[in-house]
Amino acid sequence: MPADFRSVLETFDNPYRQRNYIVETVCPEFTSVCPKTGQPDFGTLTLTYVPDQLCYELKSLKLYLQQYRNHGAFYENVTNTILDDLVAVTKPRRMKLVGDYTQRGGIRTTVVAEYIAPGFESVALS
Amino acid sequence: MPADFRSVLETFDNPYRQRNYIVETVCPEFTSVCPKTGQPDFGTLTLTYVPDQLCYELKSLKLYLQQYRNHGAFYENVTNTILDDLVAVTKPRRMKLVGDYTQRGGIRTTVVAEYIAPGFESVALS
Amino acid sequence: MPADFRSVLETFDNPYRQRNYIVETVCPEFTSVCPKTGQPDFGTLTLTYVPDQLCYELKSLKLYLQQYRNHGAFYENVTNTILDDLVAVTKPRRMKLVGDYTQRGGIRTTVVAEYIAPGFESVALS
Amino acid sequence: MPADFRSVLETFDNPYRQRNYIVETVCPEFTSVCPKTGQPDFGTLTLTYVPDQLCYELKSLKLYLQQYRNHGAFYENVTNTILDDLVAVTKPRRMKLVGDYTQRGGIRTTVVAEYIAPGFESVALS
Amino acid sequence: MPADFRSVLETFDNPYRQRNYIVETVCPEFTSVCPKTGQPDFGTLTLTYVPDQLCYELKSLKLYLQQYRNHGAFYENVTNTILDDLVAVTKPRRMKLVGDYTQRGGIRTTVVAEYIAPGFESVALS
Amino acid sequence: MPADFRSVLETFDNPYRQRNYIVETVCPEFTSVCPKTGQPDFGTLTLTYVPDQLCYELKSLKLYLQQYRNHGAFYENVTNTILDDLVAVTKPRRMKLVGDYTQRGGIRTTVVAEYIAPGFESVALS
Amino acid sequence: MPADFRSVLETFDNPYRQRNYIVETVCPEFTSVCPKTGQPDFGTLTLTYVPDQLCYELKSLKLYLQQYRNHGAFYENVTNTILDDLVAVTKPRRMKLVGDYTQRGGIRTTVVAEYIAPGFESVALS
Amino acid sequence: MPADFRSVLETFDNPYRQRNYIVETVCPEFTSVCPKTGQPDFGTLTLTYVPDQLCYELKSLKLYLQQYRNHGAFYENVTNTILDDLVAVTKPRRMKLVGDYTQRGGIRTTVVAEYIAPGFESVALS
Amino acid sequence: MPADFRSVLETFDNPYRQRNYIVETVCPEFTSVCPKTGQPDFGTLTLTYVPDQLCYELKSLKLYLQQYRNHGAFYENVTNTILDDLVAVTKPRRMKLVGDYTQRGGIRTTVVAEYIAPGFESVALS
Amino acid sequence: MPADFRSVLETFDNPYRQRNYIVETVCPEFTSVCPKTGQPDFGTLTLTYVPDQLCYELKSLKLYLQQYRNHGAFYENVTNTILDDLVAVTKPRRMKLVGDYTQRGGIRTTVVAEYIAPGFESVALS
Repeated sequence: MPADFRSVLETFDNPYRQRNYIVETVCPEFTSVCPKTGQPDFGTLTLTYVPDQLCYELKSLKLYLQQYRNHGAFYENVTNTILDDLVAVTKPRRMKLVGDYTQRGGIRTTVVAEYIAPGFESVALS
Repeated sequence: MPADFRSVLETFDNPYRQRNYIVETVCPEFTSVCPKTGQPDFGTLTLTYVPDQLCYELKSLKLYLQQYRNHGAFYENVTNTILDDLVAVTKPRRMKLVGDYTQRGGIRTTVVAEYIAPGFESVALS
Repeated sequence: MPADFRSVLETFDNPYRQRNYIVETVCPEFTSVCPKTGQPDFGTLTLTYVPDQLCYELKSLKLYLQQYRNHGAFYENVTNTILDDLVAVTKPRRMKLVGDYTQRGGIRTTVVAEYIAPGFESVALS
Repeated sequence: MPADFRSVLETFDNPYRQRNYIVETVCPEFTSVCPKTGQPDFGTLTLTYVPDQLCYELKSLKLYLQQYRNHGAFYENVTNTILDDLVAVTKPRRMKLVGDYTQRGGIRTTVVAEYIAPGFESVALS
Repeated sequence: MPADFRSVLETFDNPYRQRNYIVETVCPEFTSVCPKTGQPDFGTLTLTYVPDQLCYELKSLKLYLQQYRNHGAFYENVTNTILDDLVAVTKPRRMKLVGDYTQRGGIRTTVVAEYIAPGFESVALS
Repeated sequence: MPADFRSVLETFDNPYRQRNYIVETVCPEFTSVCPKTGQPDFGTLTLTYVPDQLCYELKSLKLYLQQYRNHGAFYENVTNTILDDLVAVTKPRRMKLVGDYTQRGGIRTTVVAEYIAPGFESVALS
Repeated sequence: MPADFRSVLETFDNPYRQRNYIVETVCPEFTSVCPKTGQPDFGTLTLTYVPDQLCYELKSLKLYLQQYRNHGAFYENVTNTILDDLVAVTKPRRMKLVGDYTQRGGIRTTVVAEYIAPGFESVALS
Repeated sequence: MPADFRSVLETFDNPYRQRNYIVETVCPEFTSVCPKTGQPDFGTLTLTYVPDQLCYELKSLKLYLQQYRNHGAFYENVTNTILDDLVAVTKPRRMKLVGDYTQRGGIRTTVVAEYIAPGFESVALS
Repeated sequence: MPADFRSVLETFDNPYRQRNYIVETVCPEFTSVCPKTGQPDFGTLTLTYVPDQLCYELKSLKLYLQQYRNHGAFYENVTNTILDDLVAVTKPRRMKLVGDYTQRGGIRTTVVAEYIAPGFESVALS
Repeated sequence: MPADFRSVLETFDNPYRQRNYIVETVCPEFTSVCPKTGQPDFGTLTLTYVPDQLCYELKSLKLYLQQYRNHGAFYENVTNTILDDLVAVTKPRRMKLVGDYTQRGGIRTTVVAEYIAPGFESVALS
């Protein structure tokens, strides 16, 4: 994943910084390409976070994820990289990404990665 | 959201103050207008609270929420503002609002905000 | 709710007092009358308790609940009153009542009330 | 419903006139206002048709339906009128509209209206 | 069932007599009393009809059905009688009533009755 | 199945002979014994009929079916015999029995048998 | 598929030849091997038939199907062959086999084959 | 319940004593007889345990439960007794029994009982 | 859609030409690009056909559909074109394509197109 | 289970060792043979783990599990052995295996086994 994928992500100022509130975004139309077979992969990404100073803008999130459409990426890598990109851009208090990929060869895979900013360990995500 | 939206909210005396009991209200017919595109938004609001001295009256809650029908509001803002209004009017021990909005551009968003009155941290909401 | 509603409740001796076991009773056919509009209300009551010396007899529970059929009662009141009646008659270690009422005016309400006898705070209900 | 509601509907040339094929459009976010109580109504409209010379354009259909947002309309009327408008503009071989409205006063209503152009009685819609 | 139950039913003029359209009304909160045991019965009534000159008014339908709340009635009787009453008052082209009653003694019963006005045998109800 | 099983079935006069209406009875708690292995079998019986002069009484139907509890019976036999018994006792215009038995050895079996009285071929059961 | 697979199928005399009744057998644990890739395939077979002189015995059906466990077979072939085998052995009035195979390469396949004995075209299978 | 019901239970040596692993057994075909009315009761039993030295053998568990088929037993009693029998025979580290009985008189009952061997309080069952 | 998309489709000889059997293929991972907005579209294609001389090979079908991944195509066009391509290559007795596309702008669209070879009008597809 | 089953398992270097992230793999097509009856068993295996230095490669996992296709294995044994093999090869921080086997003799069994590497007790698996 090229480092400049994240440059399309836009943010806006969190309008309620005084409160630890949760935003969950479900993206059921994620698709990338298997780097091994060249075959398309499909999945549902669920992003959950407690914003700090910034929120990500939803349309830019959609454009960010569409960059993976013809990009080769393994499940473990793509899930962790997307989380890293969103953490780098929005600097949240806490953020979790669940990548739930469709069945291949009779096997279905889900990857769950989470980031907690120092000092926000006790903030809940559900 | 004009400050006077909350003026239509009516309350009645909590008939069981001696007990921390929970009231959950599900409103599947919430609609507002996207301030950016002018397009209507739709969502299900789930309010859960432990009343202290006052309960909100259900019909006035319905009229309060209908004020958003032609009002421009972002998801993060509208969820936190409705919670603020209901907290201001009913002064509950604890109150949570889940705003579950329908899909736009292949993406579905949920916002969860919660208020806990000082001294009621250990009161459960489920 | 007249105080003598609870007189129809019958009990039998708990056959396993040495163990904290749970009995859950689901009553999907509860109906009462809205005291404001005179219109019928409908709901599902879920009673969960850990018996101490006494268990309630199921048929008498059914007859007890049928007394509300033509009785005016608000959701918050009726849920707490039924819990009070059952606690008074069976003196359980712990008891919870969930009243899940059907939609009115596009809004659905659930009320959850719980009783814990002193010394049984750590007994689980699920 | 003012006669000029239908003026926002746009069409495009049916690209496969030689075949009786079916297009089904589900609109779960329809809302209008009850002319009697002034309260908002909600419903899911399902349009199914076999195009002849013209297809309706989806974005203009959305704008057409949004005109009902603050318009008073009974279920029987609104369903038949929307069908009439779409038939007038697209002149289909066959068209059916199912309006499935949410519960009011413990009662849920669905209205089903259908148009068949002369000579197309045997064309199937499912 | 006293003959005057049907007197509360109100009608309005069918606004689209030129078309055979269908109105379906689902009433999930029907309750009556078993004439044998005195115990309450519960069921969901689904009314489907093609109006001719008259439509039934929904609020009056609700009040009509509430008259059965404390009235003794067997499933076979009550379903056929309600159909008869609605046919007598609205004189529809075709009308069907499905009464789906909740389980008693481990057995669940549904009764389906239908009326077709002479000359309307070929009008569809679904 | 002894011929006297059917003697417990009771009937009452069909109160609406002038109309071909349908009664469906679902019995999810049917159990018999496999004559080969002696193991219990379980199933859901769904009886659908258009009564002529007589209806079966529901409590007697329950008692009739309970006679199979410790009786050895193959699926094909038991389904056809129960239908025969009910036809013999109620002489319906049309009657269908669906026996849906639970899985044995990784295989699930359903048996469907139907009776149509001469002259009632065109009467519908759904 | 070797011709002798069908030799394990056992039958018994149809106990109700005078009636066209239906037997449906669902086998959710069918597995064979893809002749191209050597990978295992999985599927649910649903057999529906109207017996004539003979019924197949369920345990022998299970053993018959287990012969495919390590046998190479394409979906189209295996579905038609199993139907042929069962028709050859039981000589039914009518028989249908639905083979519903699990997803491979993002694609799910179902094969439906049916046999009708001459003269039994009007016998229904549902 | 006669004390000798448990004599049919057979055990085998736990092959993985070094690990606290969980075995859950779901028995959806439990049936007994109501001692008051003589009517059959039905339920689903879910047994969950962490074995110590012994595991129960599944076929003997089935035979053990079948002994209740014509035995009178109240829900509270039968659930606790079956747990006692299985604890006595397998001496598990921890064991839980959920008895989920079907609806009677419009009311559904579940009984949950649990046993924890001294020293195994922290072993999880889910 | 370029005419040479269909060149990747491969066929094999129908092994059971003597029988009108049905093959249904569900492809839940179809994606193309909206020619107007450039945004990706997603859908589930369900192909049902009665083969004549040829069957399509599943892996080549998958590759054929993947050609649309970065291709601009309207729903009405793409559904009819894919059907045309598959009919041209396999010359079936009957073939139907259902394209069920995901929600855009609060509206969900399904397109259903069907081909029947002359002389095969009475062959069923379900 | 021969010790050399695990030799087909391949691994790759965990690309995100700095983070405790979760990988869940669901395998709904597991099948083995009952060592007692010789009959095939079926189940869904759900593997959840937090990788340390190594991840298992999905295709090799599929091949590993296929080795059980004609291998005799009891539920308790097979679940614990597969967990042991995967722990031995990938040396994870934490790993859990849920084996959910299909119904036999009216009884359904699930086995849950878990491994925690020393020092990783507080790492979550959900």
